[in-house]
Amino acid sequence: MKDVHAMAPTRGRYELRQVGITGIRKPIHVIRDGIDHVLSASFSVAVDLPAHRKGSDLSRNAELLAEIVDWTAQKPVESFEAACAKIAEELLVRHQYANDATVSAEAEFFLRKGIAPGRESFEDFTILAETRAHRGADGQVTLTRGIGAEAVGMTACPCAMETCRERLTAEYPLLADPSLKGLPMITHNQRNRTRLLFELPPGIEVDATHLLEAIEHAQSSPTYAILKRGDEAQLVLNAHRNPKFVEDVMRDLLADLPARFPKIPDHVVVRVGTVSEESIHKYNVESSHETTFGELRRPSES
Amino acid sequence: MKDVHAMAPTRGRYELRQVGITGIRKPIHVIRDGIDHVLSASFSVAVDLPAHRKGSDLSRNAELLAEIVDWTAQKPVESFEAACAKIAEELLVRHQYANDATVSAEAEFFLRKGIAPGRESFEDFTILAETRAHRGADGQVTLTRGIGAEAVGMTACPCAMETCRERLTAEYPLLADPSLKGLPMITHNQRNRTRLLFELPPGIEVDATHLLEAIEHAQSSPTYAILKRGDEAQLVLNAHRNPKFVEDVMRDLLADLPARFPKIPDHVVVRVGTVSEESIHKYNVESSHETTFGELRRPSES
Amino acid sequence: MKDVHAMAPTRGRYELRQVGITGIRKPIHVIRDGIDHVLSASFSVAVDLPAHRKGSDLSRNAELLAEIVDWTAQKPVESFEAACAKIAEELLVRHQYANDATVSAEAEFFLRKGIAPGRESFEDFTILAETRAHRGADGQVTLTRGIGAEAVGMTACPCAMETCRERLTAEYPLLADPSLKGLPMITHNQRNRTRLLFELPPGIEVDATHLLEAIEHAQSSPTYAILKRGDEAQLVLNAHRNPKFVEDVMRDLLADLPARFPKIPDHVVVRVGTVSEESIHKYNVESSHETTFGELRRPSES
Amino acid sequence: MKDVHAMAPTRGRYELRQVGITGIRKPIHVIRDGIDHVLSASFSVAVDLPAHRKGSDLSRNAELLAEIVDWTAQKPVESFEAACAKIAEELLVRHQYANDATVSAEAEFFLRKGIAPGRESFEDFTILAETRAHRGADGQVTLTRGIGAEAVGMTACPCAMETCRERLTAEYPLLADPSLKGLPMITHNQRNRTRLLFELPPGIEVDATHLLEAIEHAQSSPTYAILKRGDEAQLVLNAHRNPKFVEDVMRDLLADLPARFPKIPDHVVVRVGTVSEESIHKYNVESSHETTFGELRRPSES
Repeated sequence: MKDVHAMAPTRGRYELRQVGITGIRKPIHVIRDGIDHVLSASFSVAVDLPAHRKGSDLSRNAELLAEIVDWTAQKPVESFEAACAKIAEELLVRHQYANDATVSAEAEFFLRKGIAPGRESFEDFTILAETRAHRGADGQVTLTRGIGAEAVGMTACPCAMETCRERLTAEYPLLADPSLKGLPMITHNQRNRTRLLFELPPGIEVDATHLLEAIEHAQSSPTYAILKRGDEAQLVLNAHRNPKFVEDVMRDLLADLPARFPKIPDHVVVRVGTVSEESIHKYNVESSHETTFGELRRPSES
Repeated sequence: MKDVHAMAPTRGRYELRQVGITGIRKPIHVIRDGIDHVLSASFSVAVDLPAHRKGSDLSRNAELLAEIVDWTAQKPVESFEAACAKIAEELLVRHQYANDATVSAEAEFFLRKGIAPGRESFEDFTILAETRAHRGADGQVTLTRGIGAEAVGMTACPCAMETCRERLTAEYPLLADPSLKGLPMITHNQRNRTRLLFELPPGIEVDATHLLEAIEHAQSSPTYAILKRGDEAQLVLNAHRNPKFVEDVMRDLLADLPARFPKIPDHVVVRVGTVSEESIHKYNVESSHETTFGELRRPSES
Repeated sequence: MKDVHAMAPTRGRYELRQVGITGIRKPIHVIRDGIDHVLSASFSVAVDLPAHRKGSDLSRNAELLAEIVDWTAQKPVESFEAACAKIAEELLVRHQYANDATVSAEAEFFLRKGIAPGRESFEDFTILAETRAHRGADGQVTLTRGIGAEAVGMTACPCAMETCRERLTAEYPLLADPSLKGLPMITHNQRNRTRLLFELPPGIEVDATHLLEAIEHAQSSPTYAILKRGDEAQLVLNAHRNPKFVEDVMRDLLADLPARFPKIPDHVVVRVGTVSEESIHKYNVESSHETTFGELRRPSES
Repeated sequence: MKDVHAMAPTRGRYELRQVGITGIRKPIHVIRDGIDHVLSASFSVAVDLPAHRKGSDLSRNAELLAEIVDWTAQKPVESFEAACAKIAEELLVRHQYANDATVSAEAEFFLRKGIAPGRESFEDFTILAETRAHRGADGQVTLTRGIGAEAVGMTACPCAMETCRERLTAEYPLLADPSLKGLPMITHNQRNRTRLLFELPPGIEVDATHLLEAIEHAQSSPTYAILKRGDEAQLVLNAHRNPKFVEDVMRDLLADLPARFPKIPDHVVVRVGTVSEESIHKYNVESSHETTFGELRRPSES
């Protein structure tokens, strides 16, 4: 059979940065605390294509994913990103004409949590991986492993809370009474979706649940599936005693990272993004940032 | 050229209820208050297919939509559903083998609104049409015109408000002071999406903006693009003085309809649905109902 | 704590058909061929609300789902719809004021398949459940279990194939040579998504994989993740020797059901829908139908 | 009223790269060939936030968008990206603490096209803008205007066509007859979505319709809403006489740009991406690249 992919391009002898397959779904076996978990994951995998070659051998990508899946079924990997790192490395083995492989993947992830003892149930989160493998001029392959997670929580607006306090105090002068100091006031609150990702060098491992803990701690409150009447009031109180702009979610999350991850070296890149689905607007409020652990360890003096 | 569609089916001589095209997008010219508005609409149009015929002549559907678009460009229609009614009728003219035509369509719709004078800007809503044409045994065509709208607003939970009031009053006894009666307390609030649709007989017209007014009035508060600090506090106050479950949004909306639309006859069907994107949960709360104007005019005594 | 939900509605003493929670995600353990599978499922669960009651006790829905999940973790259910039937029944136990419960759920489902030996890998499908429980005037609860599945496959258009044959034969007269009879000609082909659902009475079980087999058999060809060059040609040939309109997919699927499911009684309702994402248009072609096994066993003579 | 946004952050004195609002929808008036078109656009606008400031004044973003909309209603802009450039510049005027503003926006765009005279109708496309404004140390603001477009067309696979030709020739030896040279053979084809964006310096204008023409020319064939039987065969023939991998779509598009846009300077950045929704797989095939006009004018010799 004619190998059309290996032929020269008809026109446009340009290299292409990425050619691959996207949205391919696979079950991946991951071992956690001795238990075999199966994650339904969606993968996008790609390699670069040199200028002299018409097409990329895409069936190799699908074969490779299938092999990794079978391999984890027999011997569950220790983490989602370990599977993705293996895929990125193997892409460069199977596409000898390529020098850059990228794998980005995400999977739903359930953790058993509750606002109080006896209220635990599975909450759903997302785990993310963004791995790159690069073959240098010397043929050596270097790997960058992006490991991330996303959690949906809640924010309560600190600005509207202050303005409402002023308004209501004008209407109800008793609210100025010193005994009411610290009384949380009405404001608007919203569903907040926050994502955190580290670009780790080889040899340093991070547990996705620790990323999720850091995110949930930075929101006004985590959210839960099971809330009886008293729990609901407790969650609302917690959130209103911890009001946050998206900017606060971002900075509180960033400010916590050095203490939460003391062993991560300074050069590790950190990417953060947060979206609040505003209850008072039809649009969202969003913030994103990219920094390093080194910068996080030296906040601005300005 | 061989007309494959008109041949007999190879197997399975069954009629099919609906065969059509979906997700076809077109610009429709609608005249409102003397101004020509262009709506970017998405259409799904279908007819039934008798058992003796292999395929439906789908290119006629696309041609018909193109003609209606050109027709409205030269002579804007008085309403979105007028265009859809015209399409449904014409589908039965062009598919002589069919007896049932359905058209469902939706379009984004901008209305200039603001929380206060000087704060007006365009808010985005959705208008909906669901038209059916039926050819009876006598060849007469009857038309049912579903006309609807959807608005995004805000709800504040009445239950958590009461529980928080109890909790906070235990902590701050001064809150029980009679002078604080009526003080709105903290609760959770969320983005709410509510949809209202009437199935109208010919000759009765309803303006989509009146549907949107009814919906926004039933939510804890409408939402706005432009809110300066004082406006934001005002909107938060309004919503917290008007706390609603999704059930309240539904019933308040339904209860208002007889007075808002006094001329609509009893047999007209009403469909309502509402979704609250909960800030305290990762999932949504939803309610839906179908009734008639007659039933709405006679609420339960139970 | 005040039970706000149990109070009377402020306005609009109307019953509401459905009040519930939607989009709640949970891991469900299902046993198949002796193996414990975990499905990531999305649930929508609702009950009706009588006119005298302000709100539905929604926290019970979330608690119930959590209990069912834990229950399947300890003792995997024999099927996805068994879990959904259990949920529907329990909803009426926990909402004593309600008479109608609905559960709709879907989950991703992986099956190991390949176009040829040695090419097997996991293909992703969707399984569906739509269960209703109704409490009659005598207090007896009846259950309707909708069990369904969806598969993505491929269609090749039979009409364009004939028209292209005519065109090309005019250009290449040799194509009329009798030795070329049966040569498949070019046409357009597309991604096709087909869904099949039965509303089963209690006591009759259907395996979702049998629904998927029926669907894939009705498309021009199933699709596969791993296709080496020769496999790809084989799949293209298969599809072009089996060209289908969406109408053909529908009818071939329907016509096969009586022989594939001989034990299912006549009164069982069948719902089918198919969408082809046309390669020659920006819009989709879609067909849907609802019938019974009884009607399928008596195709039209017309 | 207390200006909470202007206060210092409680923790984490880090600057943030982007804080803004996303998914805000507005009608924008654009003049083309003397006709006033209204585009339904979705905007995301953001600025950076210095380390010393708690929050970004987001209401200014919504106000600004409203003003630009009103301004275009009175005096339609000459292009979509002109509106976006104006927004980016004004963001830096209204957020004096910020140095970087980003605007990304997209809108649906209808063009009247047909496969043959008498078959014209509106086809829907997307136009894109990604504008950045940067305030340098000297206070001077520089602008980068990304202008782009996306078109949905069709691809036919060149590899499966060759493999099918070999297979079918083995089965039908007459196919090897010289008189059948050039006969297009069966293959798989798919919906293809391709996006092209230039980062233009001030003073250079590009018409989005010229981007769309370049994209449609690079696909195996454009697609059309109205195709009568003969047109459909023509489109299928055109696509099969012009088979393309996604890699070919990319390179043919890139290779055409120097001749199509001779006046664009070498340093202008070009971003291209294409996705084919494979009919033979459940997943997509995708390619992306970033280059400059200078590189495009010097294809690789390798």
